[in-house]
Amino acid sequence: MFEITFLGTSCAVPTVQRGLSAIAVRKEGDVFLLDCGEGTQRQMMRFGVSYMRVKAIFITHLHLDHFLGAFGMIETMALNGRMEKLTIYGPPGSKATFGRPKEFVEVLEIDGRFSVDFGGFSVSAFPVKHSRDSFGFSFEEKEKRRFYEEKAKSLGLKGPMFSEIMANGKLKVGKKTIKLADVTYASPGKKIAYTGDTLPCAETFRAAKNADLLIHEATFADEKKGEAAEAKHSTASQAADIAKKAGVKKLLLTHLSGRYKDTKILLEEAKAIFENTLVAEDGMRLEV
Amino acid sequence: MFEITFLGTSCAVPTVQRGLSAIAVRKEGDVFLLDCGEGTQRQMMRFGVSYMRVKAIFITHLHLDHFLGAFGMIETMALNGRMEKLTIYGPPGSKATFGRPKEFVEVLEIDGRFSVDFGGFSVSAFPVKHSRDSFGFSFEEKEKRRFYEEKAKSLGLKGPMFSEIMANGKLKVGKKTIKLADVTYASPGKKIAYTGDTLPCAETFRAAKNADLLIHEATFADEKKGEAAEAKHSTASQAADIAKKAGVKKLLLTHLSGRYKDTKILLEEAKAIFENTLVAEDGMRLEV
Repeated sequence: MFEITFLGTSCAVPTVQRGLSAIAVRKEGDVFLLDCGEGTQRQMMRFGVSYMRVKAIFITHLHLDHFLGAFGMIETMALNGRMEKLTIYGPPGSKATFGRPKEFVEVLEIDGRFSVDFGGFSVSAFPVKHSRDSFGFSFEEKEKRRFYEEKAKSLGLKGPMFSEIMANGKLKVGKKTIKLADVTYASPGKKIAYTGDTLPCAETFRAAKNADLLIHEATFADEKKGEAAEAKHSTASQAADIAKKAGVKKLLLTHLSGRYKDTKILLEEAKAIFENTLVAEDGMRLEV
Repeated sequence: MFEITFLGTSCAVPTVQRGLSAIAVRKEGDVFLLDCGEGTQRQMMRFGVSYMRVKAIFITHLHLDHFLGAFGMIETMALNGRMEKLTIYGPPGSKATFGRPKEFVEVLEIDGRFSVDFGGFSVSAFPVKHSRDSFGFSFEEKEKRRFYEEKAKSLGLKGPMFSEIMANGKLKVGKKTIKLADVTYASPGKKIAYTGDTLPCAETFRAAKNADLLIHEATFADEKKGEAAEAKHSTASQAADIAKKAGVKKLLLTHLSGRYKDTKILLEEAKAIFENTLVAEDGMRLEV
């Protein structure tokens, strides 16, 4: 399970209601940030997500509104005596952008084949279509093996036997050998995909395939389709179209233009194509 | 008259209630910023101060919490098509810090003797005691010549004669020549001083002499006097002491440590020395 908190849901210019791009993904006490726009540390305080628990920051592309907040956050971490490593995963150019940060910070430059394993889940990058070297990121839990409880118990499994058979793949109970495969099934892990800024593109479709949640940028409504194409952004209905084709369970629209004080039009246009759509708001929290 | 809006009143780490250092000084439609911490552009939106009207940013010292927001604000100005010059006045090192900003931005490095004339008023720097090259800034309106109205009228001055005598220094009314000095007096301009981060120091005392308003940092209460000295900050009572000795009209305390959720102790300690003290809050607005 992942817990997601939207920290900033505005496009390039913030508004009173929406901060600049940042999403916190919490997993077993650790926090992973997707982008880190100006003001993110304060948004975290506001919405009760610990900046000291941030283990990694994934930066989709090197436009200022997606990373400026990392500088302020690192400074605050240092003032709080942070020693634990913080890794910033960003596009080529990230090392130059962050210069010589504090000692506990490591900056790693990624490409479209990047993937990192955090134990119970992995984070992978996928290339998107916006500025040069723009990426989306997907979080994928590993498949888990779960017991058919009734069947397992009827075959005599109990107590520590469950861990034993899990560890060894089989277990002798009385005179009979039980195979792990016979009493368990594979439970797929959860999957989230986040686009960063992008035109609608096949790479997002592939990365979001059957995801539990797709967080897609939707800077504009259809009325601004031309402007969206020009600025290499998406409309709400384009995001919905990808959500539908990729067969995702839920779509969240973010990175909204400040012109949509009322986001009804974005929601309506998306829902006409993909029903299970929500428009992100700063502070919105959901579990996947 | 100056209109002052506190945009961020926290010390190095922001809180939910307080943003990072920034103060807007409005004068005849123009906005001048004193420091520009992370999140300042959004604080301006929140408190109704136009970032497009910012003519100059005065940076007291090159600690990140006092200037990071300028990067985001410049980006937003550019997205809004800004062409008018924006001048950043900062300590030595500012040019390197800001690198190659947008074309409309000019970065000027200042010293402790710096002064710039904006027509009706001037802004001057004074060296303070914090990090290397830390400055405070004072805003001073020029003296204005005002008429003793009754006397001027009794001598026959009326209508356009007022502008004439003001322009020429004297005016013949009937057979009599009236001298400007006889019908006018010098009305002193308003004066504001802002310290930035500093230990209590003689330079602030001199710059604040008889000011209408002294905005002094007060990171700590007296209980943390040692810590204040070590980190080269001031306590509320040290700020009050300078306000009293400099004979200022009003003292505003800002740059408060996040530990003072309740600022009563700061206010009480300062008021015990200098009665006309206020603790700044984000969004607080006053006219001087």
